[in-house]
Amino acid sequence: MKGDTIRSSIRLRLVLQPDLAFGPGKADLLEGIAVTGSIAAAGRRMGMSYKRAWSLVETLNSNFREPLVSSSRGGARGGGATLTDSGKRVLDLYRAIERRTDASSRLEIEEMRMMLSDMSGET
Amino acid sequence: MKGDTIRSSIRLRLVLQPDLAFGPGKADLLEGIAVTGSIAAAGRRMGMSYKRAWSLVETLNSNFREPLVSSSRGGARGGGATLTDSGKRVLDLYRAIERRTDASSRLEIEEMRMMLSDMSGET
Repeated sequence: MKGDTIRSSIRLRLVLQPDLAFGPGKADLLEGIAVTGSIAAAGRRMGMSYKRAWSLVETLNSNFREPLVSSSRGGARGGGATLTDSGKRVLDLYRAIERRTDASSRLEIEEMRMMLSDMSGET
Repeated sequence: MKGDTIRSSIRLRLVLQPDLAFGPGKADLLEGIAVTGSIAAAGRRMGMSYKRAWSLVETLNSNFREPLVSSSRGGARGGGATLTDSGKRVLDLYRAIERRTDASSRLEIEEMRMMLSDMSGET
């Protein structure tokens, strides 16, 4: 995993519908696509198979009214993928909540860490 | 699951150490113990086996300097369990972050929901 994504103390899953969540995995995949221009490369960065990355993108695209990822297979450069405006917006909204939660919960998390035993693998 | 716990739009996992997280499952188990006075009953409310509930409590107790749960096995009433002051504090800290995040992210989550397709199981 490259250092492009936030190394936050929180992992946040947004429950958009009872059976539809948007969490760190989908966010990192969208961010990887924005950075690499490729679904396969974005998946590789996360240790995700090509098939799994494509399947996640297809799920995301069908969950939203407008696709989040626009892609073309094949061609001279082996196809490519970009985030649509909707994709950028969803990622921005998620990262905004994540950043705000991370910043606003620092004191509470610090207090919990101070309560951990020395056996808890503190480094 | 009884209606005692917050039905939030977010699921939050706090990464206290690289290999030690505190998330919704541990929070609900602590809350269940506070409400029922029993590890087994708290686990049952979550569809968790007796063994798994006890094992989670043992992990929690060893992760923190002071135990989070105080329990006695056996006895006329079949033993009982309560949260220690540390247990109450950890649960309070977690719920405070969860409540604040849920309240402060309403607009963003609503915007994401408005972007969902009609096929997304909206009820």
